[in-house]
Amino acid sequence: MITRTQRDDAVEAALEYFRKASIALTEDEKQRIEVADFGLGRLKEIGLELLTYVNTDRVCAKELILFPWQICPEHRHPAVAGEVGKEETFRCRWGEVYLYVPGPKADSPRGRPPTDAAEYMTVWHEVVLKPGDQYTLMPNTLHWFQAGPEGAVVSEFSTRSRDESDIFTDPRIGRETVISG
Amino acid sequence: MITRTQRDDAVEAALEYFRKASIALTEDEKQRIEVADFGLGRLKEIGLELLTYVNTDRVCAKELILFPWQICPEHRHPAVAGEVGKEETFRCRWGEVYLYVPGPKADSPRGRPPTDAAEYMTVWHEVVLKPGDQYTLMPNTLHWFQAGPEGAVVSEFSTRSRDESDIFTDPRIGRETVISG
Repeated sequence: MITRTQRDDAVEAALEYFRKASIALTEDEKQRIEVADFGLGRLKEIGLELLTYVNTDRVCAKELILFPWQICPEHRHPAVAGEVGKEETFRCRWGEVYLYVPGPKADSPRGRPPTDAAEYMTVWHEVVLKPGDQYTLMPNTLHWFQAGPEGAVVSEFSTRSRDESDIFTDPRIGRETVISG
Repeated sequence: MITRTQRDDAVEAALEYFRKASIALTEDEKQRIEVADFGLGRLKEIGLELLTYVNTDRVCAKELILFPWQICPEHRHPAVAGEVGKEETFRCRWGEVYLYVPGPKADSPRGRPPTDAAEYMTVWHEVVLKPGDQYTLMPNTLHWFQAGPEGAVVSEFSTRSRDESDIFTDPRIGRETVISG
């Protein structure tokens, strides 16, 4: 749970990242920025700010903002209603992001999840994305990512997004952000 | 047909637009920029510069560059091999672009195709896209677009791209750019 003030502050901070990345938004879009705390109430550590540009039956495009060291926790996109799961490409636009996927574990990973959350980060193959770098994830691939010291702006190009179907490794997580106060 | 020098000059000019729009590219991507003259050999009037970020069976994302008043000629994306045609969203990142789709004709359209090409522009409902504006086209919808006086940088989010299947209104057009010299 986060308070309305925390949510509003996160939106303001996210707007600053859009400016840093020189990404133009309409006034309507600025009002539509979402703040996801994954129900954990510790947004600055584990959370995500995002703007969905388009999400039809076939195509989705979003812009993701991560504050410094902010983590999008480990999850995967399973098949839903007989349809193959979500496929997504992450393209770093600004800052730096450390993406973790299945594969040989990094010797000295740059990502540093909080101790109580680290047990739910089970994949440790590291992909470092700097501006212009991108990585494509096929459906149902476990992944999590964390911004570097400056935060990050990441474009996501994907098939239809159904966030409510995502399966998180951490059983404490719900996708819904609850705003209090 | 365009010469190798014309192609190289167009790539250089396109790179300048990526810089103006603050879009970071890798060195490899800079080498992969495509120049499409649609076989007409009059690139500055009718043509497109583009970089494909990703194009899988399900998802495609590209960046399109249009020089001042450059036109992407009228076409549509039909069903191919029993699969529904390409759906695409155009999002203006920099500059200004005039997109034409089926619907009531604009009274004073901003687009101004060359006389001999105008007869192959049959849809005249105008959508003006400035930075942050976007428009989604469902499959098989006729469309063409022209940049404004400064040129334009446009993100395209779509289903799989099969350029070779596009159907152009102008019978003189072939999608392949032929490089001579």
